[in-house]
Amino acid sequence: MPNSREMEGSGAMTFETRLRDNAASTEKLLAELLTGAVGDDEIARPANLLDAMRHGVLNGGKRLRPFLVIETARLLGGNEAAAQRVGAALECLHCYSLVHDDLPAMDDDDLRRGLPTVHRKFDEATAILAGDSLLTLAFDIIASPETPLTGDQKTALVLALARAAGIGGMAGGQALDLAAEKQAPDEQGIVTLQAMKTGALLRFACEAGAIIAGNDASHRQTLRRFGEKIGLAFQLADDLLDLTSDAATMGKATGKDAARGKGTLVALRGEDWARAKLQEQVRDAANLLAPYGDKAEILVEAARFIAERKS
Amino acid sequence: MPNSREMEGSGAMTFETRLRDNAASTEKLLAELLTGAVGDDEIARPANLLDAMRHGVLNGGKRLRPFLVIETARLLGGNEAAAQRVGAALECLHCYSLVHDDLPAMDDDDLRRGLPTVHRKFDEATAILAGDSLLTLAFDIIASPETPLTGDQKTALVLALARAAGIGGMAGGQALDLAAEKQAPDEQGIVTLQAMKTGALLRFACEAGAIIAGNDASHRQTLRRFGEKIGLAFQLADDLLDLTSDAATMGKATGKDAARGKGTLVALRGEDWARAKLQEQVRDAANLLAPYGDKAEILVEAARFIAERKS
Repeated sequence: MPNSREMEGSGAMTFETRLRDNAASTEKLLAELLTGAVGDDEIARPANLLDAMRHGVLNGGKRLRPFLVIETARLLGGNEAAAQRVGAALECLHCYSLVHDDLPAMDDDDLRRGLPTVHRKFDEATAILAGDSLLTLAFDIIASPETPLTGDQKTALVLALARAAGIGGMAGGQALDLAAEKQAPDEQGIVTLQAMKTGALLRFACEAGAIIAGNDASHRQTLRRFGEKIGLAFQLADDLLDLTSDAATMGKATGKDAARGKGTLVALRGEDWARAKLQEQVRDAANLLAPYGDKAEILVEAARFIAERKS
Repeated sequence: MPNSREMEGSGAMTFETRLRDNAASTEKLLAELLTGAVGDDEIARPANLLDAMRHGVLNGGKRLRPFLVIETARLLGGNEAAAQRVGAALECLHCYSLVHDDLPAMDDDDLRRGLPTVHRKFDEATAILAGDSLLTLAFDIIASPETPLTGDQKTALVLALARAAGIGGMAGGQALDLAAEKQAPDEQGIVTLQAMKTGALLRFACEAGAIIAGNDASHRQTLRRFGEKIGLAFQLADDLLDLTSDAATMGKATGKDAARGKGTLVALRGEDWARAKLQEQVRDAANLLAPYGDKAEILVEAARFIAERKS
């Protein structure tokens, strides 16, 4: 019987292999969704706009959000093809938010994963439209006849995704983030901002698996809470990375939040508190999935990965 | 029995009253959807972003697209509350497109219906996020439990709206419109551009009524074709107005398309051709609805209104 260190090692290896495999599937699907082939009810796909969308999406990301959709669906026996497509939809939506956040009027970033941002490679108008089109495509992919789910499941996914992404979720969080540059929020303000800006989509990613696997209320609630823990862990890890890493590792400008005087929980409570809080989220996340036994190990590994990631 | 002139007169009066009544219902519903009340699964609604969304939407427009959703649904006996909500969703999406089109990187307009555009009254970042949030809200409203339709109907609406609004529809049309500033498109290019930029949403508005009323394929196809005729009429009327009217009547800058050298069918084929083509669309639209008899008169009046509107 292997000792616990070996088990951790093999778990981590399994996780990283699985993350890479899932990312490859997602990348392939995204490339298929973003060809020049004109779909039913579409009139044309202008080449320049399509290129900008592809640049914003097909960039070799870790595809963490699709991973969470796919693995939570697998945990509960959801349809694999449906989970792949919902994962790709979520990634389109995530990438739209990056394209818009990078705009000169927002965070004004020139680089994303070491490459020029969409508005730098194309132009501002094209970046705005590429983001708009990716956001729209996310709902298209979910509702498409090619996604093997019932109308009720698709409706639940559309609703949950819209709530996670709109004024009450991610877009609202970005608005709070911009406001935070002018006036630093208090601790509750930071928690709300982060839960909206990054937490909501991660929560959706996990909840989506339960919707795909039949939309049982109890599973959905558990995975939703798991997603919330992961979301907080993600943000704490991000803030800690922002504090310590450099642009070469991150492939984007770092230390910017601190430089702009935006509050983070790390800045407010200190690094030790943040590291302890981070470990607490991972423990809580693991405990939430304990009833699912070994099958859930890959998701627990994902929580650890999120907490310990170096970029 | 009244003569035909009197019938036309009373038809027009009925139409204008109905347009006003429907617009009032839509306005009321939009105001209810855009309060500070935090919905299920929303975390918070940041006040500044909400104000910007309200400024972009609650501006006393004619609400032509909701009118078409509501009246096509009525024609076929669709659920009234559902039609009102889908109409409001479509209006949110239409208004998102106006907010983004007005941005400095796009058409750079300072005025919209005689008021400052969203980026002028707020700022660019807020206008981008307000547009993003309105687009997202459109799908939220359709999928919401408060919209009394089946999961399959909601899915059909989400899919049709996404296709009408995304790269293969409205957003793609805006990309072609920006490209047309640099190189004037040929006649087929103009037709494609206009079918995407303005036609697709008007087509969706009419098709939506059929989906709401049970999604019968034959009705849906007829109303879709009616919507296409209306879309072309709308664009021809717009181009003719752009040629002849002044900023005071339109409440926005006019003559801009011509000044920028963008091709229009009016510029290419002349005013007489365009007026004849416009009347042809109205006749075709009326013929398509002839099988529905008197019940369809309000929609035929709508086609005439679109062709003859002065602003």
